Amino acid sequence: MNSNIHNRFNSVRNLTSSLAEKMQPEDSVVQTDMDVSPPKWHLAHTTWFFENFILKKYVRNYKPYHASFDYLFNSYYQSQGTREQRNRRGYHPRPLLHEVMEYRLAIEKEMNDLLTANNPDEQFITLTELGIQHEQQHQELLITDLKNIWSRSPLFPSFNITYETLNKATEARWLPVDEGLFETGYSGNAFHYDNEALRHKIFLDGFEISSQPVTTGEYLEFIKDGGYQQWKYWLHEGWDWVVTNNIKAPLYWDKIDDSWYIYTLSGFRKIDENEILTHISFYEAEAFARWRGFRLPTEHEWEVAATLYGKNDTSFNFLDQGKFHPTGVDVGNTAFLGQVWEWTNSSYLPYPGFKPWGGDVGEYNGKFMVNQMVLRGGSCATPQDHIRVSYRNFFHPHLRWQFTGVRLAKNLDE
Amino acid sequence: MNSNIHNRFNSVRNLTSSLAEKMQPEDSVVQTDMDVSPPKWHLAHTTWFFENFILKKYVRNYKPYHASFDYLFNSYYQSQGTREQRNRRGYHPRPLLHEVMEYRLAIEKEMNDLLTANNPDEQFITLTELGIQHEQQHQELLITDLKNIWSRSPLFPSFNITYETLNKATEARWLPVDEGLFETGYSGNAFHYDNEALRHKIFLDGFEISSQPVTTGEYLEFIKDGGYQQWKYWLHEGWDWVVTNNIKAPLYWDKIDDSWYIYTLSGFRKIDENEILTHISFYEAEAFARWRGFRLPTEHEWEVAATLYGKNDTSFNFLDQGKFHPTGVDVGNTAFLGQVWEWTNSSYLPYPGFKPWGGDVGEYNGKFMVNQMVLRGGSCATPQDHIRVSYRNFFHPHLRWQFTGVRLAKNLDE
Amino acid sequence: MNSNIHNRFNSVRNLTSSLAEKMQPEDSVVQTDMDVSPPKWHLAHTTWFFENFILKKYVRNYKPYHASFDYLFNSYYQSQGTREQRNRRGYHPRPLLHEVMEYRLAIEKEMNDLLTANNPDEQFITLTELGIQHEQQHQELLITDLKNIWSRSPLFPSFNITYETLNKATEARWLPVDEGLFETGYSGNAFHYDNEALRHKIFLDGFEISSQPVTTGEYLEFIKDGGYQQWKYWLHEGWDWVVTNNIKAPLYWDKIDDSWYIYTLSGFRKIDENEILTHISFYEAEAFARWRGFRLPTEHEWEVAATLYGKNDTSFNFLDQGKFHPTGVDVGNTAFLGQVWEWTNSSYLPYPGFKPWGGDVGEYNGKFMVNQMVLRGGSCATPQDHIRVSYRNFFHPHLRWQFTGVRLAKNLDE
Amino acid sequence: MNSNIHNRFNSVRNLTSSLAEKMQPEDSVVQTDMDVSPPKWHLAHTTWFFENFILKKYVRNYKPYHASFDYLFNSYYQSQGTREQRNRRGYHPRPLLHEVMEYRLAIEKEMNDLLTANNPDEQFITLTELGIQHEQQHQELLITDLKNIWSRSPLFPSFNITYETLNKATEARWLPVDEGLFETGYSGNAFHYDNEALRHKIFLDGFEISSQPVTTGEYLEFIKDGGYQQWKYWLHEGWDWVVTNNIKAPLYWDKIDDSWYIYTLSGFRKIDENEILTHISFYEAEAFARWRGFRLPTEHEWEVAATLYGKNDTSFNFLDQGKFHPTGVDVGNTAFLGQVWEWTNSSYLPYPGFKPWGGDVGEYNGKFMVNQMVLRGGSCATPQDHIRVSYRNFFHPHLRWQFTGVRLAKNLDE
Repeated sequence: MNSNIHNRFNSVRNLTSSLAEKMQPEDSVVQTDMDVSPPKWHLAHTTWFFENFILKKYVRNYKPYHASFDYLFNSYYQSQGTREQRNRRGYHPRPLLHEVMEYRLAIEKEMNDLLTANNPDEQFITLTELGIQHEQQHQELLITDLKNIWSRSPLFPSFNITYETLNKATEARWLPVDEGLFETGYSGNAFHYDNEALRHKIFLDGFEISSQPVTTGEYLEFIKDGGYQQWKYWLHEGWDWVVTNNIKAPLYWDKIDDSWYIYTLSGFRKIDENEILTHISFYEAEAFARWRGFRLPTEHEWEVAATLYGKNDTSFNFLDQGKFHPTGVDVGNTAFLGQVWEWTNSSYLPYPGFKPWGGDVGEYNGKFMVNQMVLRGGSCATPQDHIRVSYRNFFHPHLRWQFTGVRLAKNLDE
Repeated sequence: MNSNIHNRFNSVRNLTSSLAEKMQPEDSVVQTDMDVSPPKWHLAHTTWFFENFILKKYVRNYKPYHASFDYLFNSYYQSQGTREQRNRRGYHPRPLLHEVMEYRLAIEKEMNDLLTANNPDEQFITLTELGIQHEQQHQELLITDLKNIWSRSPLFPSFNITYETLNKATEARWLPVDEGLFETGYSGNAFHYDNEALRHKIFLDGFEISSQPVTTGEYLEFIKDGGYQQWKYWLHEGWDWVVTNNIKAPLYWDKIDDSWYIYTLSGFRKIDENEILTHISFYEAEAFARWRGFRLPTEHEWEVAATLYGKNDTSFNFLDQGKFHPTGVDVGNTAFLGQVWEWTNSSYLPYPGFKPWGGDVGEYNGKFMVNQMVLRGGSCATPQDHIRVSYRNFFHPHLRWQFTGVRLAKNLDE
Repeated sequence: MNSNIHNRFNSVRNLTSSLAEKMQPEDSVVQTDMDVSPPKWHLAHTTWFFENFILKKYVRNYKPYHASFDYLFNSYYQSQGTREQRNRRGYHPRPLLHEVMEYRLAIEKEMNDLLTANNPDEQFITLTELGIQHEQQHQELLITDLKNIWSRSPLFPSFNITYETLNKATEARWLPVDEGLFETGYSGNAFHYDNEALRHKIFLDGFEISSQPVTTGEYLEFIKDGGYQQWKYWLHEGWDWVVTNNIKAPLYWDKIDDSWYIYTLSGFRKIDENEILTHISFYEAEAFARWRGFRLPTEHEWEVAATLYGKNDTSFNFLDQGKFHPTGVDVGNTAFLGQVWEWTNSSYLPYPGFKPWGGDVGEYNGKFMVNQMVLRGGSCATPQDHIRVSYRNFFHPHLRWQFTGVRLAKNLDE
Repeated sequence: MNSNIHNRFNSVRNLTSSLAEKMQPEDSVVQTDMDVSPPKWHLAHTTWFFENFILKKYVRNYKPYHASFDYLFNSYYQSQGTREQRNRRGYHPRPLLHEVMEYRLAIEKEMNDLLTANNPDEQFITLTELGIQHEQQHQELLITDLKNIWSRSPLFPSFNITYETLNKATEARWLPVDEGLFETGYSGNAFHYDNEALRHKIFLDGFEISSQPVTTGEYLEFIKDGGYQQWKYWLHEGWDWVVTNNIKAPLYWDKIDDSWYIYTLSGFRKIDENEILTHISFYEAEAFARWRGFRLPTEHEWEVAATLYGKNDTSFNFLDQGKFHPTGVDVGNTAFLGQVWEWTNSSYLPYPGFKPWGGDVGEYNGKFMVNQMVLRGGSCATPQDHIRVSYRNFFHPHLRWQFTGVRLAKNLDE
């Protein structure tokens, strides 16, 4: 049978296990926010995904691993029955972390049996591929959620990573794109999400886009110039968010004696101005762009530019590199993938002719298409083989706990 | 000086006054929701708009009418200083209704003095035109807000309007549009909002759009089929909204002994299946379309189709007709303007090259461009000379107190 | 028949009407807080009380005045069916103020018919007396609620009352009471609430109580000494309340250029240090007492002392005097009634052998006996013939919109 | 030095450690409610109490164990600086459980050094005694909090305890007390809380009190009779609580196929009608008493009766017995201590002449004297040597996660 997918299944699962080893049982239980799940929950939910959508269908007379796991580890699949409320995932010490790891092994064994069997079923392969991609998404969430949990502690737990001072950031260049009729959306035969299709024509006015994301140093200028104190840079709802939550800096920043510090997965330290900026909301990205006199790109502009200019071989920073934080922009590259998810000024809406996947996994993407903004490019916590230029991520505009950043754009004639 | 705008100023102001005569002092004070302002507030706010943005600038040594009116009647203009919180507009019995009407007359007198003077200033004319258009927007809000207030009363106050039974609704037809490169956005030299510009090219795949909005009878089928009880028709946030608020029908509907009734400005009565459906949220519009196997149009599709097919002379229903409720679709017309605001599947975002107006009125439209959906076409409470095909209205997806409705669309090949 | 109660019925009703004349239709509609009802609601609710509990029973074939008034004007009587939510009383412009006054007249006419009839029924007289007392309670609330509504306005509406500067406040004296067995609770044959009975024995340790309530000037010392900034003076929940609500002074106080101003029903003016302090919460009363090194009296101590020392003939300030604000303590009297309701350190709980009234009015008092504190003595907005030393008022400890104040106590040997 | 207190220190600390062994690291982290703290927090907070209030004072040049533990493990002592918000105690995986146990050992070692030293300081002994008593309070909370956490899990974790069916409950008898002047409050020379003093005279009308707490079977009659569906049995705030929270039974009860089940620390099982009722709010206790035609005792009545009638030697059920759940009332005893905390109808208020302890521990009890009700008697999770008849526990009236129950009372002549 398809040995490629078999290998990928095991290597992705093993990577998750290695991430799980970075935490203690106590770490795995905590939920600090509606959007932040306990790390243990990710380990179980990704496993439940294989069990529920594949084993229940492909293993004859399958007996569920545990009667309560549908309830505990279903995320949002209405078709799969009742489930624990999202904001109560942190109420559950049980099953214990080692019991979850045993659950993982048991399901992996069943999956391996199926993957080594003859007579591959095309839908089985499709669902397995989806389960692998799904697990990769949760690898990123496991990292960002654990970071959020640890960030609340005055003890600042961290991974055993050495932070290295960065070279001076290169100056950004404007990359021009002339007006014209383009195509965006996934084209090809490999795995892709339903929300990336169909490939379709789009007319774009001429524009320019920055060769690199904004750095911490550039953003510091915005702060110093009173960016968080002046309503005129902000969308109405953004300003409400700033005032209501008393926002004064990106998430995980802290000011001590006039110096800005940042909590990262390598510890708590001074900010580095040469580093790519991260952990900002859409509101902050949008306000920063206005302050600079520019704007955010649309997701279509981003995709067209990334296709034309993206050189991702020269400098990458994905989950695979194990840095878990953006680095600098010190090599003059024009990478569009990795480092930080880049907020676009596009709402998450269906492409022309969009059709959600059929079956139970139809709830995967389509039902979230309102009130969220599109982000592009993947981050330092995204597996490298999971991302592509047509990939559409989406979050509510106030959220900051992902590795989010910003790349500027402007009209061609300005 | 420009006698046209002078006449329009007075006729629009007079229309507002005639609307004000439909209510009692007690009616004018109440606020039932964050989004619903007291009718008295609208009467004062529109007046403050002229006083604040025009009289303060164009009347030499202008002395404000009252020291507290900036605080009480500024809506959301950060540049104009502190103001009462939006959800506290209903805390203010003072100034009394008749005092507000005196305020109106005093400001009108000052405006008339300026409008009859020589040496028209172009910016003065522009701001006056904006003030007139602004007042027309609030005429609609005054009607919808008063309706919302009255709807809470078991006494069901209403206007002195006779409701007439409608003819049987005509069957909707599909109006086809082939794929191609189109232009949308305002083109012309008359007044238009900043958010309708710039006119720009847009590529559209082929689609079909309904010749008429959905009727109450068609929506009743959705209800009877359990539309509000089945998650599968709804966006994730839409379903949350249904469950959290226990939504079972459009706003102002009430079920008594197995029959549906509706509160309208002509009183409380049985629904009429031939009537155009109104008072639904974006979530309901979107769910209904999915249930029917179709979808909502984008705002671009709507504008292109309205330009191609719109015949607005045969059957109109605007504020001017004084019906204050949608009528039927009984003449086979293809009107796109009037009756109900039609939810589109487009988020309210800037057009390419969008620039907010300069000066203090720059806060008018641009700062709201996040988390809202675009509606098109105007309603039975919109002044006829206020609306046009390029007009972009916008509300949060859960709101229903405006005269909102839905028109279906589908891909060309389906 | 009983001409005394007949006269009192009409004089109390007339007093309410004269209070209603102090406001405009717009004033009568507004609700600014869960605990603050629209003045119009008080006018209707007190009328509904007579209609619902008396006319429905004593008028043969009684036809209710309006089918919806039970719903609109029932306060909290579960036995009398569904009713509008308390926090939505301000959603109702209808019936209009003049319609409510017509309702009042119609019910008064029916009541007068009954009151002039022969054959008085003892329960009828009891219920009528209760209706009169109930109306007196709402006379006070009508005043305090209207004050709260007007206080929100930068226009500061007020009654046509001239404020006169007060004489220098007299120094308070300690009034001693030796330990012993006392009796508290109502004794007599006149009207009294069920919660004042039964008269019962109580043992009190010796104590001293102040001859007068605390003045504004004395409280100002607490503010100047940082009373609102130091947790040590406050109960745990009091401190939470201070911090959460950013409390810095009594309700209706405002600091302008280092001077304290107060909104009163005679207008907005500087505070007068010789005036009796009012509009404080239990938390503030309790914290002030601790700061001074003393404590609040219990309700039993208060009643015993008021019985022993109360000389209420020399200086009174009730609703009848029409001042609607506390005056000074300039005559060295030891009045315990009038001026301000005095917070005690007693929770509102049943007296030994307490039995709620039978029938529908059994919900009047007893069901509120948890989480509230007792206040004693009546205020400048209490009708003089409504109050007595055994009268128990009760409010939640954070509430301040009544004319509340504080009188100090201490143990005898301190 | 005082070997008694030295032994007690170590035995109480050891008991806590043995309780800690009943849980896994994951269990120790979770917080399910504002009032429920993570078990790990209790282990650390009780240790911090000794470190902060004793070691910092009595160990020369004491170096705090960890710079962040003041912040993490201070509960509510304003005098001891800033601390984590109470509802965020569950955000902290760190320090890990084993690190907390190491912290415990380190502080115990320091305490043992002090306890074996010569020259005992009286205040040192007083504070150590308080620390021991404080730890005993948290032993009970550790049990009730762990139970609450586990109760949320469909896996229903439990202790390894065998549940034994109970004998038929004995019929309750009325124990009479004639009217008279009594004394309540602590009398003696042993440890007691400041809130139990001073001993003072109190006059009581004659009353009768039940010989035993209410059983599950008796309460079941209330449920079957529609007790939760009829407002007339409830205090106004109690009924609001029932309706808002959709309360239908005591906490931890669940109805399956017409049978009531209960979650206990020995597992999930059918209720036992002979068992003493537990996990009810004050509102439920009060409503049940009214339904039965009786009332709750005051705390004074309870204390007087417990002194007269309490025979606690025949049947006890404290933490020491390790049952962690109330048992039956099968031996006709008149025990007042153990089994369940009994709600009284007394608010938690100061006794005459109450003075909080001096110094930093002055915040221990006094500042909570508002809006809470007194409970008496201790429970199956209270250490036996921690409780006495004068002991005053206090909770907000809606809380149910403690082992709370109810004992009926009535007036003597009814």
